[in-house]
Amino acid sequence: MKRLALLTSGGDAPGMNAAIRAIVLASHYFDVQPLGYRHGFNGLLEQEYRHLDTEDVYNIIQRGGTILKSARCQPFTTQEGAQLAARNLNEAKVDGLIIIGGDGSFRGAEHLSRYWQGNIIGLPGTIDNDINGTDATIGYYTAIDTALESIDKVRDTADAFERIFLIEVMGRHAGFIGLSAGVCSGAEQVLLPELYPDGLPDPQELADHIRRAQKIRGKCSYIMVMSENIWPGGATDLANELQTRTGIECRPVILGHVQRGGSPVSLDRMLASKLGAYAVEAMIAGKSGIMIGERNQQLVEVPLQQSWNKSKLLDPYLVKIQRQVFDLVKNGNNY
Amino acid sequence: MKRLALLTSGGDAPGMNAAIRAIVLASHYFDVQPLGYRHGFNGLLEQEYRHLDTEDVYNIIQRGGTILKSARCQPFTTQEGAQLAARNLNEAKVDGLIIIGGDGSFRGAEHLSRYWQGNIIGLPGTIDNDINGTDATIGYYTAIDTALESIDKVRDTADAFERIFLIEVMGRHAGFIGLSAGVCSGAEQVLLPELYPDGLPDPQELADHIRRAQKIRGKCSYIMVMSENIWPGGATDLANELQTRTGIECRPVILGHVQRGGSPVSLDRMLASKLGAYAVEAMIAGKSGIMIGERNQQLVEVPLQQSWNKSKLLDPYLVKIQRQVFDLVKNGNNY
Amino acid sequence: MKRLALLTSGGDAPGMNAAIRAIVLASHYFDVQPLGYRHGFNGLLEQEYRHLDTEDVYNIIQRGGTILKSARCQPFTTQEGAQLAARNLNEAKVDGLIIIGGDGSFRGAEHLSRYWQGNIIGLPGTIDNDINGTDATIGYYTAIDTALESIDKVRDTADAFERIFLIEVMGRHAGFIGLSAGVCSGAEQVLLPELYPDGLPDPQELADHIRRAQKIRGKCSYIMVMSENIWPGGATDLANELQTRTGIECRPVILGHVQRGGSPVSLDRMLASKLGAYAVEAMIAGKSGIMIGERNQQLVEVPLQQSWNKSKLLDPYLVKIQRQVFDLVKNGNNY
Amino acid sequence: MKRLALLTSGGDAPGMNAAIRAIVLASHYFDVQPLGYRHGFNGLLEQEYRHLDTEDVYNIIQRGGTILKSARCQPFTTQEGAQLAARNLNEAKVDGLIIIGGDGSFRGAEHLSRYWQGNIIGLPGTIDNDINGTDATIGYYTAIDTALESIDKVRDTADAFERIFLIEVMGRHAGFIGLSAGVCSGAEQVLLPELYPDGLPDPQELADHIRRAQKIRGKCSYIMVMSENIWPGGATDLANELQTRTGIECRPVILGHVQRGGSPVSLDRMLASKLGAYAVEAMIAGKSGIMIGERNQQLVEVPLQQSWNKSKLLDPYLVKIQRQVFDLVKNGNNY
Repeated sequence: MKRLALLTSGGDAPGMNAAIRAIVLASHYFDVQPLGYRHGFNGLLEQEYRHLDTEDVYNIIQRGGTILKSARCQPFTTQEGAQLAARNLNEAKVDGLIIIGGDGSFRGAEHLSRYWQGNIIGLPGTIDNDINGTDATIGYYTAIDTALESIDKVRDTADAFERIFLIEVMGRHAGFIGLSAGVCSGAEQVLLPELYPDGLPDPQELADHIRRAQKIRGKCSYIMVMSENIWPGGATDLANELQTRTGIECRPVILGHVQRGGSPVSLDRMLASKLGAYAVEAMIAGKSGIMIGERNQQLVEVPLQQSWNKSKLLDPYLVKIQRQVFDLVKNGNNY
Repeated sequence: MKRLALLTSGGDAPGMNAAIRAIVLASHYFDVQPLGYRHGFNGLLEQEYRHLDTEDVYNIIQRGGTILKSARCQPFTTQEGAQLAARNLNEAKVDGLIIIGGDGSFRGAEHLSRYWQGNIIGLPGTIDNDINGTDATIGYYTAIDTALESIDKVRDTADAFERIFLIEVMGRHAGFIGLSAGVCSGAEQVLLPELYPDGLPDPQELADHIRRAQKIRGKCSYIMVMSENIWPGGATDLANELQTRTGIECRPVILGHVQRGGSPVSLDRMLASKLGAYAVEAMIAGKSGIMIGERNQQLVEVPLQQSWNKSKLLDPYLVKIQRQVFDLVKNGNNY
Repeated sequence: MKRLALLTSGGDAPGMNAAIRAIVLASHYFDVQPLGYRHGFNGLLEQEYRHLDTEDVYNIIQRGGTILKSARCQPFTTQEGAQLAARNLNEAKVDGLIIIGGDGSFRGAEHLSRYWQGNIIGLPGTIDNDINGTDATIGYYTAIDTALESIDKVRDTADAFERIFLIEVMGRHAGFIGLSAGVCSGAEQVLLPELYPDGLPDPQELADHIRRAQKIRGKCSYIMVMSENIWPGGATDLANELQTRTGIECRPVILGHVQRGGSPVSLDRMLASKLGAYAVEAMIAGKSGIMIGERNQQLVEVPLQQSWNKSKLLDPYLVKIQRQVFDLVKNGNNY
Repeated sequence: MKRLALLTSGGDAPGMNAAIRAIVLASHYFDVQPLGYRHGFNGLLEQEYRHLDTEDVYNIIQRGGTILKSARCQPFTTQEGAQLAARNLNEAKVDGLIIIGGDGSFRGAEHLSRYWQGNIIGLPGTIDNDINGTDATIGYYTAIDTALESIDKVRDTADAFERIFLIEVMGRHAGFIGLSAGVCSGAEQVLLPELYPDGLPDPQELADHIRRAQKIRGKCSYIMVMSENIWPGGATDLANELQTRTGIECRPVILGHVQRGGSPVSLDRMLASKLGAYAVEAMIAGKSGIMIGERNQQLVEVPLQQSWNKSKLLDPYLVKIQRQVFDLVKNGNNY
């Protein structure tokens, strides 16, 4: 192992820079040359890379985004694309490739592995936390805190006006951010895809719950945290629907892309630093086709396919707590 | 002056609690009894008040929202409403009333003054900064910083993806938050009502600018900060429009109610503390029909009507700077 | 189980309020009456308690400190003290007591259990994370982030001036905060009690390292994170010592009590919410003499004595990463 | 005016990068070449500079520290030093020099002007706000907010433990940070140099006040904000002194260098952006020997000497408010 390459792909996540730094530092520590490809898989197609020295990663551990840039890349998904990438990697004398990204990026990794002989290792980098085989993904912790800070602020207004707010958080098709942000903000209710496996929540039921709760509790703020994609038209449409059905003013707040950025919190920096360093060790040990994750405080190697073909479960105890809050609210508790 | 009342009205703003605290502390310092009415003008109608002791305002200087709650109040705008409020204030032996709110609240104050003999003083409390006669309103400074923190985060993603984001900020019909947040975040462009006095910006012109800039600059992030109400359908619709016209992906981010909450920054706490204390002094001195503001670092008394019948101007030098940035971008500078 | 009492004791930690809220909500959910004792064990001696309704814990999940106040309490450690506490608990018809605090508080719990028949359960609440049997303690996550934010700021100055800073963090006799904050801030070196089991680090060795590193790296910032209690006189004295020995300006920064406060980050809110709710369930199930913790994402019951008679280990992989950074710096890498 | 140089000198301050960016953007806008000298006046001696393009200042508006680095520079203060600097500037064909720093840096500017014919303009950059002729200095607003956030956190612990904390803030020999942070945090007392013009405060008087206040108020938190340099040995020694005299536990917290760093708040970014852009305009207009400041919302040109030979006054109304709080506390109000 003389030379490894790395890239970031898919949606950016806070901590990606910490992972890049860790990979570069560990590479230099173990006398391996690290090459940074820019713009995700596009960089492989356009041979856009440069050597990364320790100075290049100085003072980036605290930065959001990714110094290597990211991108989606359609052409790479073809056979020709992967073959071109393989030729370029060989031309650059790369022995192994570390890909930091989400499950789409990992499928890309698998696609590449059919045409390239080098070793491939994935690091889970996405705010959505929807990667199986690791307790958390790089960026998830920061995203929760970002969502939470925003909801705490909305609570001030909700409280001053005793008003109902629907707050839409990210998560693609997983409720991790929604559940954590909901429990942590003391939300009166959460709408998560995992809680409605058979389809949409019934708007009349939601409206009845709100109306009954507000009637018994007296004037009160009421915050509902909902995942993106759970309701057609999102928080805006559901707020309108509920306002019509309850006759109570309902306001939507869509947190949106704010959740992707920002300086990573300590847990994301730690996770990224550990996964990055370990990925270099695994690469040197000749491992391939795996994702490095952390489970139960142990660094683990997970076959890449496992990362997406089994879906990760929400913490059942958090779900239980949130249900208890919901029931308390229903019974008129103005906690 | 034995007893004064206070209330918060209209949209809540960070620093309202600091103002309440200052009024209560100064009242006790000068041996005046402060009464806190809850839920804005509604409290006057429903005689919902309580005596406020110094302990009641302990540790609230750092809290967002308002411990007195706020509300909009339709019935108060009638003659009967104001007369009922006047009777209630007299019944509670209130000599003067301090109203913390925006221009709608000040119009309410004027309405009340036709039916009530007590002294009335307004404090400018709104994040929008659209009150004439004071350099800043309570809550404005925090709102800029909140918007700015969010835009800084979006910049991380914009930068990682070299993408275009349209960020919609609050301000009702004024561009103060938009201009400040735009300049401070290094936004490539701002859309403010004051810059388009004759109507909507021309979408084709906006699209041409973006396309030309992105073509010359190479791949780049591009952030446009726009005021709410400047485009029908807001950032979402304008993003769609521009995406269609440019063929470049444009993403909307609507900061929304997050901007109203949060712990007030130091400047809002200072402003609120000064205005609140001074309002009590002015009340004791027999002043009425005025708003307390701060101009050029001096506390000033402004006739209430002046606060809304003359509109406040944007800082022309900030506008100039932003225009220079816009021109630099247009000419291909990837600053 | 009809009535349970709760108190917070020892140094306060962010998330204690979230734990109080969780206990109160779960109690009401399961129809148990919660009583809040104030000022830690002092409250037991002075029978200072009140019933806690769901409204009492409204909107406290995001607050630092503890609404029940905390205190150290010497008289409680005597036989008479514990007997008085036992009588008072019986008089208040308390069936079980939940104590949120650190190992000193747990020893107090054990002391009380010799004189009182009720059930006693402990929740780990301390920023130091030095409680065995749980992966993290309530408050630890927030403390790391607080330390980290401060160190990130110091890095700005260190970097602008290419200067050496010694930053002293809390942790009593454990290096958890120091190690995490060190790794996450990209510190060039950490001084933790666990790394110097046989005594003080050798100042000449520290000085030689710094001098050599700065000589090879050229002008550079250099940050050393050190635990409190590792050096007599703390960061101030060690900075003087190193400045004398190296001839390079060394500045101390003592983060101090700032680390104890602040709004809890999401992970502390989640941990506190889960431990608090589970403690009520365990109490109802008749458990006693245990601490509730979380290990490997599972809620666990740990005999109280185990919480202090076995010391918790630092994450060896974090130690390894930090050592690699240290070696890279030593060899002149300006990462 | 074809080429201007810029440098940052003295203690770094948040917003220096925003000022650098503004100077570089305005220079390019007006077709002037900007040269960045590194390490303050040292850069002039060692001819350490580089051309700054718009790309060099991309995405730095939100960064603390200074990309040009700063330093103190003894050799520059000699005649030989200034002559060498003058030769170097001429050699680099520099027509004018913009210096961002505090009063020491401005004296350096004056010193240089005796040996160099080019134009010299200063921008006030220091967290201390102790520069006459401008309402605020670049970095001051951020420093207050940083201090305030820390004090808010200490309040949590002070409140939980009902304890006394002495918090030492920066400000060199001026009380601006102390006064603002004190008023904004609701501090029970402030110790500022301007309030004790004839020397030290009397420790017995301080102790008496605390003892009396705590006796009347009952158990309470008590926060004293003190400026650095006002007490020999700082907060640590004064805390010991007061603890001895009152018999009540007093804890010191020294905020230290944390106050210099961090991402600048919006007001510092705005101030820096305006001053920087205006400095370029003034330079082009042939101005020299001045500092650019902002007073009463107007950009002003102040003779450099005025910036240090007249000291700036604290806001008298803030002082008055703080005195009222102090008196309320003395009379037992637990506000």
